[in-house]
Amino acid sequence: MDSFSSSKMDVPWRQAVISVEQFSRQDIDEIFSLADRLSVGRTMPLTGKTITNLFYEPSTRTSSSFYAAMTRLGGSVIPINEVNYSSVTKGETLEDTIRTLECYADAIVLRHYDDDATERAASVASVPIINAGNGAGEHPTQALLDLYTIAKEQGNVDGLTVTLMGDLKFGRTVHSLVKLLRMYDVVLRFVSPEELKVPREYLNQNDTEHTKLSEVLSETDVLYITRVQKERLSDNVAIDFSYAITKTDMDQARDDMILMHPLPRVGEIPSELDSDPRAAYFRQVRYGLYVRMALLVAMIGRD
Amino acid sequence: MDSFSSSKMDVPWRQAVISVEQFSRQDIDEIFSLADRLSVGRTMPLTGKTITNLFYEPSTRTSSSFYAAMTRLGGSVIPINEVNYSSVTKGETLEDTIRTLECYADAIVLRHYDDDATERAASVASVPIINAGNGAGEHPTQALLDLYTIAKEQGNVDGLTVTLMGDLKFGRTVHSLVKLLRMYDVVLRFVSPEELKVPREYLNQNDTEHTKLSEVLSETDVLYITRVQKERLSDNVAIDFSYAITKTDMDQARDDMILMHPLPRVGEIPSELDSDPRAAYFRQVRYGLYVRMALLVAMIGRD
Amino acid sequence: MDSFSSSKMDVPWRQAVISVEQFSRQDIDEIFSLADRLSVGRTMPLTGKTITNLFYEPSTRTSSSFYAAMTRLGGSVIPINEVNYSSVTKGETLEDTIRTLECYADAIVLRHYDDDATERAASVASVPIINAGNGAGEHPTQALLDLYTIAKEQGNVDGLTVTLMGDLKFGRTVHSLVKLLRMYDVVLRFVSPEELKVPREYLNQNDTEHTKLSEVLSETDVLYITRVQKERLSDNVAIDFSYAITKTDMDQARDDMILMHPLPRVGEIPSELDSDPRAAYFRQVRYGLYVRMALLVAMIGRD
Repeated sequence: MDSFSSSKMDVPWRQAVISVEQFSRQDIDEIFSLADRLSVGRTMPLTGKTITNLFYEPSTRTSSSFYAAMTRLGGSVIPINEVNYSSVTKGETLEDTIRTLECYADAIVLRHYDDDATERAASVASVPIINAGNGAGEHPTQALLDLYTIAKEQGNVDGLTVTLMGDLKFGRTVHSLVKLLRMYDVVLRFVSPEELKVPREYLNQNDTEHTKLSEVLSETDVLYITRVQKERLSDNVAIDFSYAITKTDMDQARDDMILMHPLPRVGEIPSELDSDPRAAYFRQVRYGLYVRMALLVAMIGRD
Repeated sequence: MDSFSSSKMDVPWRQAVISVEQFSRQDIDEIFSLADRLSVGRTMPLTGKTITNLFYEPSTRTSSSFYAAMTRLGGSVIPINEVNYSSVTKGETLEDTIRTLECYADAIVLRHYDDDATERAASVASVPIINAGNGAGEHPTQALLDLYTIAKEQGNVDGLTVTLMGDLKFGRTVHSLVKLLRMYDVVLRFVSPEELKVPREYLNQNDTEHTKLSEVLSETDVLYITRVQKERLSDNVAIDFSYAITKTDMDQARDDMILMHPLPRVGEIPSELDSDPRAAYFRQVRYGLYVRMALLVAMIGRD
Repeated sequence: MDSFSSSKMDVPWRQAVISVEQFSRQDIDEIFSLADRLSVGRTMPLTGKTITNLFYEPSTRTSSSFYAAMTRLGGSVIPINEVNYSSVTKGETLEDTIRTLECYADAIVLRHYDDDATERAASVASVPIINAGNGAGEHPTQALLDLYTIAKEQGNVDGLTVTLMGDLKFGRTVHSLVKLLRMYDVVLRFVSPEELKVPREYLNQNDTEHTKLSEVLSETDVLYITRVQKERLSDNVAIDFSYAITKTDMDQARDDMILMHPLPRVGEIPSELDSDPRAAYFRQVRYGLYVRMALLVAMIGRD
């Protein structure tokens, strides 16, 4: 499907979460069952454990999610935000930073601007590494929480029609989610401007591509919307595509459809839709907390 | 007294601390009793709970105070400091940020530069919001700790003469404290340069205004000093008013007077006065810890 | 040995860790025994305690080390990084900042750019202060962890030949370590460019100075390498000294030598040496965690 080396797939996910391609359907079942259990009651199985949030790029929502996941389990977080290569680490390599910080922590959650950062970190680390977004690469925990949201909201994943709309060319969130959905019996619909179509390697034979949501709205069980960044569109091309959803769209959508968005939104979904019970994007945030709690317990919960 | 809408007053303070005007005298008695109890012994009633310190403006002392209050009660804090609208939240609204972060926390402590930020946050939040300073508006927990300091140091509040000196026009700290003191039987003396007089709506008929501290020093039980920011004074007006207190002043003050200041001080109180037992400003910081512990327990201590 | 006043030496280290000169050999034995005990098992004697990491200069590795030490003992850390004098503390003095923050914490770990900052802080504080690096002055906890590393790796300190190589003129790490080593029966070898020789006051009669590592490598039990900052060397002096160690050097070194470095390294040690069992610099990081845990327990572990 892409250029992943087999070596990356061979790393057990409990040792380093690098890519969604490391997970089997059974792995996912286990993680989701654990997330279910951790979402109720307040056990603190990670009391006395510490993780490091090592963020070379700012990402308040992702770092806060891991922070909350860890503290709710009784553990602690060393927050290292917006690492400034020149002043903070004084020019040391990522590998040396990882080997230093692993002395202080039971796991390292890493956000980095380089596509191969997680793999490099995992190759030298003796504690688990979790990819919290690496450059244009993957953001596997986002994809897992997206899938968990679908499973919880719709009761299952098999048999669903999932429509993905927005920037399908550059959105790493969408790409990772598509990879995960391929493990299930789903039909995918891709809605985007011509310029931002999903790369061919993500397309299956049963999928269809569209430029108008109206062509697929009535059959959609899950509508996943992402941002279209204006700077991705060439100036001299007139885009008459509206990637935003309206109240009228929702009136025509199925009663049991759910509307998802990785957030932050910047116009794709008007706030007047927030009170619609089908608006699942804030519940999605909450599901993310449970999935990350499950990953942390699975990875460092055993002594 | 000011333009507060009745709606703000109708929000129960346990749900959102927006303004000092939400508190009845009985509420305050309850909070102070709880602060008394929490100040001795080390119970940890908030174990497993998490709050978010969401600070759009830096305020080390306020964020540290809430941080310490929470951790001393057994809880955890997600520190989000100096939120950069453009990079960190990628342009999302305050409301969306609140709805996202509330998924991770049992309460949100909010410092924001907009006067209506706390109310906007509280209107969408399903977890308690605490105003840690909103623009030129209020800083209600500062006012509560000021009042608690007076009550603890003087044994009571009724019957006291409280003198407020400094920038009485722009200082939100003073305005909030005055509102709280109105619930008690106190006499207020306002000492300021002409240009920085307290707004008329804060004046009662028994109060008096002065430009010299010497006019009221001998009758003062509590002397509350705030900063005068030079930029508040027009350049072409000669201000012959010294808002700083001296050792000579203290010699003329009552033996049981207390000297308060919200800190940081920048010249209003010379450090040689720190050893004077009447200097209460660092004890004031400590009282603030207890008041914030009490608020947190009152707001999120029950499941 | 230097210009330390006797007053600084008179401060008990449990009250304020200012300089390595406060420690007797018996003190060190106690701290190291405590570090040994804390390195195994997971007791949490500092549950409910809070420290403040007050860093006026960024130092991710030192602040992370104290952060992890505290949380592994059950305590919490208020992280205050990169204090901006003008905006955050609004011009208040270090003394006032300390007196404010001590109201929130059981101890303050202080990193500051002024040589006398720790002493000034300790002179007003009622909670323990720990020097985490003060300007060109000391970094006593680094020196203690260096000594602990030697003791653990070599089984003892007496009888060893310790070679220090690199910038011996400006490196405060080296200076503090030399002071500690003087309490033991060691032979010191100093290897540096002429321009960066160790100051005379650190030299004892049995020590020798060199410009080539090869002159002392074969007798060396501990090789401690530090950075040479290029800006320390005058442009018009040709330095034919290589302060980097090579695989060839290691081939000629003793089998039981250990190689230490305070990190970060920027070329002094090639990563190909990391797998050499004599490479102790990452274990050194871990020993630092234990030493800081021991200091925290010794200083604030008793009520």
